[in-house]
Amino acid sequence: MIKIFAPATVANVSCAFDILGFALDNVGDEMTFTKKNEKGVTISLPENSNLPTDPLKNVAGVVAIEMLQKANTDFGVHIHIDKRIKPGSGIGSSAASSAGAAYGVNKLLGDKFSQTELVEFAMLGEALASGIPHADNVAPAIFGGFALVRSYSPLEVIKVNTPNELFCTVIHPQIEVKTEKSRKILKKGILLKDAVEQWGNIAGLISGLYTNNYDLIGRSLQDKIVEPVRSILIPLFYEVKQAFMQTGALGGGISGSGPSIFALSQGEQTALKVAEAMKQTYAKTNIEFDIHVSAINPVGVKEI
Amino acid sequence: MIKIFAPATVANVSCAFDILGFALDNVGDEMTFTKKNEKGVTISLPENSNLPTDPLKNVAGVVAIEMLQKANTDFGVHIHIDKRIKPGSGIGSSAASSAGAAYGVNKLLGDKFSQTELVEFAMLGEALASGIPHADNVAPAIFGGFALVRSYSPLEVIKVNTPNELFCTVIHPQIEVKTEKSRKILKKGILLKDAVEQWGNIAGLISGLYTNNYDLIGRSLQDKIVEPVRSILIPLFYEVKQAFMQTGALGGGISGSGPSIFALSQGEQTALKVAEAMKQTYAKTNIEFDIHVSAINPVGVKEI
Repeated sequence: MIKIFAPATVANVSCAFDILGFALDNVGDEMTFTKKNEKGVTISLPENSNLPTDPLKNVAGVVAIEMLQKANTDFGVHIHIDKRIKPGSGIGSSAASSAGAAYGVNKLLGDKFSQTELVEFAMLGEALASGIPHADNVAPAIFGGFALVRSYSPLEVIKVNTPNELFCTVIHPQIEVKTEKSRKILKKGILLKDAVEQWGNIAGLISGLYTNNYDLIGRSLQDKIVEPVRSILIPLFYEVKQAFMQTGALGGGISGSGPSIFALSQGEQTALKVAEAMKQTYAKTNIEFDIHVSAINPVGVKEI
Repeated sequence: MIKIFAPATVANVSCAFDILGFALDNVGDEMTFTKKNEKGVTISLPENSNLPTDPLKNVAGVVAIEMLQKANTDFGVHIHIDKRIKPGSGIGSSAASSAGAAYGVNKLLGDKFSQTELVEFAMLGEALASGIPHADNVAPAIFGGFALVRSYSPLEVIKVNTPNELFCTVIHPQIEVKTEKSRKILKKGILLKDAVEQWGNIAGLISGLYTNNYDLIGRSLQDKIVEPVRSILIPLFYEVKQAFMQTGALGGGISGSGPSIFALSQGEQTALKVAEAMKQTYAKTNIEFDIHVSAINPVGVKEI
């Protein structure tokens, strides 16, 4: 039996829509994996959970089933999921369980599969959850730190350097934003000149990460393409952004497809002040919210 | 009096259209700058040159005039330009003279201006040459190595790490491709999904440069947006590309707006073989061509 922590993740890091994500350190699911003699996968959940225990309807289940089949094992796996990330929050709830399942089952298989293969398996969970087998949450959940999805065919994930004074603040307004809807409202076509501006910022962001240049990271966190469209689904998005910029955050944006909003700061003290500023902004509304302050998780899913 | 070498540059590095360029080491203009008592700028050229000596019509002239005015000097400058890069080649001919002028005049002014300011002055030369004040050739000419233009307003240039085994091979087919024309044929709109694929490659390229990962650099040198359109103006573009890929180059593409084609290789030996393969491909045509094999110039314009 092994027990693991599967981290929440922030994908669509502002300018780096659909290609980059990073893992949080203190927000995530806990999962236990137990070998059993009967083949197949079974799932259990805490009593108050309303997630499906049918393994074909559970993201962890579909990942585990596929891995056991590929490995052609003569044993089965029971997975207990202690879900600590709220579904639909935009901080990789389904990705955590999917990546956690890939990591946990792989441990029971004696580390048979590579990290990139684990991302591929975990993408099956993402496909079940949102209809799209995207990798920008499961990749950082598996690799840790900042993970770049350079290419899908073949899948190539690159672990980018993470400056160690970087902290993340995330506010999760408890409204529902469906990934599907926030994807549908995006324009299919964009202007080349906007794309060029965006790729300047992406190149700046990656440069800033490798050179531990916090100000450059901040200046590069700009998104003229996706944020202006998706932010309309998030109440007070620009007020929150103004608040965290005035409080000294480097920059930020929509976490995943929302409704969560993230900010990156240099140092935990600033990240805590940013949390306070976000809180004050949202306190004006009657929307409930959670706030997390976290270091960047350098290793991704881990045994606990 | 000072004498300088102003390097040729390759801009639009495949996926990194309009934001990245690098400097060559052994191809470039030579320029001398002499203080004179009379205010203003004068220009001389070798006898066989047909470039304008009128400083208002010469890229080096317009750059120098603006700098002397900004610095409010009581002296003038005479510039002699020994042009060694063929105009219209796509390896930054106008950029070399513009960047050279900015660097040379700045030396006479006691290094009054910053490197970024020199790029801004040199952009005036680019505006004269092509109508567009772009920075992706003059930035690497001034900064050396790989230079990223993250933003235009304000102008921000980032010098990216250059792996030291990287060599460039460039073939310059002697046909005319006007920058203006090769810009006009580009589509103004692109698909978001193509843009996302492109920014994955840009992030991969920048990662590869910082981590000296030659294979990653190679895999990232892909351009589905600009290359398919502009390559129609360059005879045998895809044959040349196939030839250099089969010879072991990491990757490559159109240099600037063409007609030159560049390839990057790990090690000089491979770059020389690539030159041979390019030569054999173009020998089938009746188009004259030059081929250059060069290390990446780490410093940009320099005194000689």
